[in-house]
Amino acid sequence: MNEEKIIQLPEPTLRRLPWYLAYVNMLRTQNVEYVSSTQISRQINVDASQIAKDLSFLNIKGKTRIGYQVENLAVTLSNFLGFHNDHTAFIIGTGSLGSALIQDSGLMQYGLHIVAGFDVNPDIVGKNICGVPIYHISELAERQRQYNAAIGILTVPVEHAQESADLLSAGGLRAIWNFTPYRIKASEHVVIQNTSIYAHLAVMYNRINGNR
Amino acid sequence: MNEEKIIQLPEPTLRRLPWYLAYVNMLRTQNVEYVSSTQISRQINVDASQIAKDLSFLNIKGKTRIGYQVENLAVTLSNFLGFHNDHTAFIIGTGSLGSALIQDSGLMQYGLHIVAGFDVNPDIVGKNICGVPIYHISELAERQRQYNAAIGILTVPVEHAQESADLLSAGGLRAIWNFTPYRIKASEHVVIQNTSIYAHLAVMYNRINGNR
Repeated sequence: MNEEKIIQLPEPTLRRLPWYLAYVNMLRTQNVEYVSSTQISRQINVDASQIAKDLSFLNIKGKTRIGYQVENLAVTLSNFLGFHNDHTAFIIGTGSLGSALIQDSGLMQYGLHIVAGFDVNPDIVGKNICGVPIYHISELAERQRQYNAAIGILTVPVEHAQESADLLSAGGLRAIWNFTPYRIKASEHVVIQNTSIYAHLAVMYNRINGNR
Repeated sequence: MNEEKIIQLPEPTLRRLPWYLAYVNMLRTQNVEYVSSTQISRQINVDASQIAKDLSFLNIKGKTRIGYQVENLAVTLSNFLGFHNDHTAFIIGTGSLGSALIQDSGLMQYGLHIVAGFDVNPDIVGKNICGVPIYHISELAERQRQYNAAIGILTVPVEHAQESADLLSAGGLRAIWNFTPYRIKASEHVVIQNTSIYAHLAVMYNRINGNR
């Protein structure tokens, strides 16, 4: 059993770890060997003491006066975050955003492997997008037995969000990545991650107007 | 001067408003005429009193025993959130995620109009993606005089995030929508909105493992 895998961090810490990783990966390409929490702090706008605390959750400790070893920090962070593992995913709704995500090879670099898409549109069902087969939504349970996907990505129109979430829960998927603005519900065994890019747009518009 | 436009809401309220909008838009398609905060609350997992408070920021008040008029609520929310206005945007970095966003017509429905893309890749520069012209990054200042874009969408590799942000600030753009995991900095006049979809992946992976 891999102890490291089941550390449950506070969500704010979890969200900061990818920032540290992005920065140290950049240092790695510049062949920098050591970095201090003060240096990371200056780049990332997070208190140095907070950075040290976040990293201590992963048992990463810097050396006095020298700091963290860049290579080691990058590998430990990436392993902990699960970006090196292969997480299989279905995508539900292969309209504009759904097919865009299938085409985003960046997701693959972060360990997300989209293995199949589902839709109801007869123009799309039976075809494939970038090699990913698109099935009719009625085949979801059957295809889940074939693929055993862990994550369902929800990119359907808002009025189909809850019924699609129900299908994913019933199919035994373990997480739903919800891109719709609808607040879906699922059993407590299913992890729900909301990524409301349109809500972020609203926040940004409001801030722009406030800056006038 | 439009007074409504410069109300600065608390960010948690701002983030909830699109959830209410998504729900009432759904009710609208079902020809529902009135909805109470209790009904919204049941669907969205937000306290009814919080919903009433959030909506009162926009001077939306429900009628006793009847609730909010659905049509009116939808229009007021959508107007307030700026989804009916046209916000012009540049996209910096037209790789996988960047070109995916150009193809996401959902953004247009939420008032975001991508007018040009920028890259350094000679295979892409001079071409167009879904009708959006792609220019060399060195043309940014010149093209900004032509288009006067408000928002720069950052989808470059992490090592180019800060320099691209600097170009956008220098070009006079008013907001940067940062999809990179890098914590960019800009002058206080520039609104920064971070949307770290890969950080959300990390949170989800960790929660899945914790649920084992």
